[in-house]
Amino acid sequence: MAEKITPRSEDFSRWYLDVIREAELAENSPVRGCMVIRPYGYELWEGVKAGLDRRFKETGHKNAYFPLFIPMSFIQKENEHVEGFSPELAIVTIGGGKELEEPLVVRPTSETIIGHMYSRWIQSYRDLPVLINQWANVVRWELRTRPFLRTMEFLWQEGHTAHATAEEAMEETLRMLDVYADFAINDAAIPVIKGRKSEREKFAGAVASYTIEAMMGNGWALQAGTSHYLGTNFARAFEITYLDRNNELQYCHTTSWGVSTRMVGAIVMVHGDDQGLRLPPVLAPIQVVIVPIWRKEAERSQVLEVTQQVKTALADAGIRVHLDDREEQTPGFKFNDWEMRGVPLRVEIGPRDVKQQSVVLARRDKPGKEGKEFGVPLTGAATRVKELLREVQKSLLEQATAFRDAHTHYVRSYEEFKEVLNEEGGFLRVHWAGTSEDEARIQEETKATLRCLLLEPPEGEGECFLTGKKTDQVAIFARAY
Amino acid sequence: MAEKITPRSEDFSRWYLDVIREAELAENSPVRGCMVIRPYGYELWEGVKAGLDRRFKETGHKNAYFPLFIPMSFIQKENEHVEGFSPELAIVTIGGGKELEEPLVVRPTSETIIGHMYSRWIQSYRDLPVLINQWANVVRWELRTRPFLRTMEFLWQEGHTAHATAEEAMEETLRMLDVYADFAINDAAIPVIKGRKSEREKFAGAVASYTIEAMMGNGWALQAGTSHYLGTNFARAFEITYLDRNNELQYCHTTSWGVSTRMVGAIVMVHGDDQGLRLPPVLAPIQVVIVPIWRKEAERSQVLEVTQQVKTALADAGIRVHLDDREEQTPGFKFNDWEMRGVPLRVEIGPRDVKQQSVVLARRDKPGKEGKEFGVPLTGAATRVKELLREVQKSLLEQATAFRDAHTHYVRSYEEFKEVLNEEGGFLRVHWAGTSEDEARIQEETKATLRCLLLEPPEGEGECFLTGKKTDQVAIFARAY
Repeated sequence: MAEKITPRSEDFSRWYLDVIREAELAENSPVRGCMVIRPYGYELWEGVKAGLDRRFKETGHKNAYFPLFIPMSFIQKENEHVEGFSPELAIVTIGGGKELEEPLVVRPTSETIIGHMYSRWIQSYRDLPVLINQWANVVRWELRTRPFLRTMEFLWQEGHTAHATAEEAMEETLRMLDVYADFAINDAAIPVIKGRKSEREKFAGAVASYTIEAMMGNGWALQAGTSHYLGTNFARAFEITYLDRNNELQYCHTTSWGVSTRMVGAIVMVHGDDQGLRLPPVLAPIQVVIVPIWRKEAERSQVLEVTQQVKTALADAGIRVHLDDREEQTPGFKFNDWEMRGVPLRVEIGPRDVKQQSVVLARRDKPGKEGKEFGVPLTGAATRVKELLREVQKSLLEQATAFRDAHTHYVRSYEEFKEVLNEEGGFLRVHWAGTSEDEARIQEETKATLRCLLLEPPEGEGECFLTGKKTDQVAIFARAY
Repeated sequence: MAEKITPRSEDFSRWYLDVIREAELAENSPVRGCMVIRPYGYELWEGVKAGLDRRFKETGHKNAYFPLFIPMSFIQKENEHVEGFSPELAIVTIGGGKELEEPLVVRPTSETIIGHMYSRWIQSYRDLPVLINQWANVVRWELRTRPFLRTMEFLWQEGHTAHATAEEAMEETLRMLDVYADFAINDAAIPVIKGRKSEREKFAGAVASYTIEAMMGNGWALQAGTSHYLGTNFARAFEITYLDRNNELQYCHTTSWGVSTRMVGAIVMVHGDDQGLRLPPVLAPIQVVIVPIWRKEAERSQVLEVTQQVKTALADAGIRVHLDDREEQTPGFKFNDWEMRGVPLRVEIGPRDVKQQSVVLARRDKPGKEGKEFGVPLTGAATRVKELLREVQKSLLEQATAFRDAHTHYVRSYEEFKEVLNEEGGFLRVHWAGTSEDEARIQEETKATLRCLLLEPPEGEGECFLTGKKTDQVAIFARAY
């Protein structure tokens, strides 16, 4: 199995595609740029959805659903928005056999159509805030695609909220950034960095965009979620107004925020190794796989009886467990197969274990003997499995954090910047007082982009690595997906 | 509130639209034929999804996701399929600013693209069965739309399975029909009738289509879910083949089955009354609403303290509870408001209840005093509420069943058929040995359609009401949405 996967160190991009294919997460479809999310990949996405949806509801949001199609004229109402999205649109021109009078855009994002509805729903300060989220598919006509990371159609959630004041809207924007970071760190075991996007990188139509940035296994950055303060830009374009307590008409302040199936790609790229996937237990579709081992037919039924008992005990304890009782495969094949699929914990049960009324536990995050526990008593197996799942979750986050920190370098000059980027890659942490033009030049010369401006950098004042200007502002630059 | 709702008996269609609007389930969007599903309506749909998804997983299905866009050439591969769907297609002709070489169809259903993928995934009998479901949006260019019942875009699930033999595929088709009926009856409290569609009414491309038919509050029928045995039709069109145990190439037998946001419309139309919605407790977003009652400021804090206690007790018991502590509305307004929104049970707590350490419970399904219980002790409130929720669930199903049975008439002649249809409406149960042409004529002359052929009618042999031919076959005719 593992030989079908290119070593990560040899070619990270090929490794990624190999893992996606061999673990059956997704597959290219006959429609250019659109992927098929296979059951194992979709189950991972269901875990992401559940973790986010719970947090959205805990913070007072409700789900709703808005149309897939958006009238072309809507997209054109907000100037920056139309500029940003026009080149990426898929457009329906024929419906029910007839040419349409006004073409319909397949939503690339829903600020406009939702803004239109909010203008109907919101009349008074009593109607505020409106806190709505939508789980949906969106389409952006991307030329260069990669499964999960960038596809023409993708699945995501988009939160859209309306508030009475700028302060409340900004509070919401940052609250949702925190929700994303909390999910990424605690569920996906990805130590993301929170920050603000530069003017050049912000969302088309936003006043300010915030992001969680993750470091992939090759040192590149991935924007794993964004939260935008939209000011009154969309409120003005769509007349989202309310009467305040003094009966005066005011524009609402709106926000939007989204996480997509990219998150699945991030999980693969952060935790995977040469053997394949490594999934954080909180999100793993299968948390524990049980592999029965026997040689002689006489051992078979005894072993299978115990594996069945263990399966029931683990399932009863709320653990997502799978018993691999395939007859045509060897235990060795199964070990590799489930390691490749990233199952956090393996239970092995052979004739000796049956005799001793115990099991062997093997962790996916620690290779070989180091990750194995022998003679775990049957009676306490579920308890020990639960503990180990927590430990694996913790260990994946620690490993990813250590990797990120080891590949983050503070640099003082553009020379050093280029040298470190070429030789080490990773995140370049810098004092930054440059312009959008400076950013463009850096990208052209080094392919690195400004990932985010840190929210509360501990560094204090320093000199911009490029311009030499004094500044408090600290930025992360990196090559990015 | 109620005066905003047209009485059901006066104009059922207007009543339906009024309820949808006033209960804030959905709203028309600026895109013709597309609705916006508002949070309360979407929460109801989330309940439907959860109930179905659990059952799909229990019967061995996995979720996956396939592209929104389907190449035009795919749709054309299955003859009946293309005939059935061509007039209803929305077509993308422009992407990324360029005219597309091959137009893309926005999926009206996914047999074709999924069939294409299955032809890649299935090689051997060992790969079978494939049991996959997709939660997705689909688009059909409908001219006459009605919220939830018929919209251009709608949300649904579509199951797609592939099997080695006709028998297995037929078993699956009927298993999923049972799953749908089980959900409808036990979760939605809708006493559906299972049956087979006639040749004229079956799915475009199916060998046999099965349906669950529900009776709405005006006696009309609604097809609430369908399950199709597709034979080898799509397997032949998309080369879905496998090597059997004898190493011979065989076509797979496939099925597909779907339930959509129509189900929400069915729930409204089956259970609603002149006061508005009546929701079955299993699916109700809010199962219990607590309304505090006080006159004097001194009573206020005492009452609110107890309502808070009761809210916590109910929530801890796993009940979906809402405390309506709005200051600007009277209790009477709140009673009407939540009745209109169909909340199954109301808890009233006033100063006298505080003194007696008890609450008043009021059932939505029984109007006035008959549905009220006074002096329910605080300590046992959660237990009693749970019992009552079960009773309301049962009572809604019983009421709907009694209504359906009272409006189902066995008729022996076409004269009687027309008379009963005009005077009473409802379901017309008949022995049936007619042709598709006969069906077409009946529809033209009476607007009634053949809803389904019963699977195991108890009637035994009789004479076809139209042709007089002897037959075992019993059919339901009705006007339908």
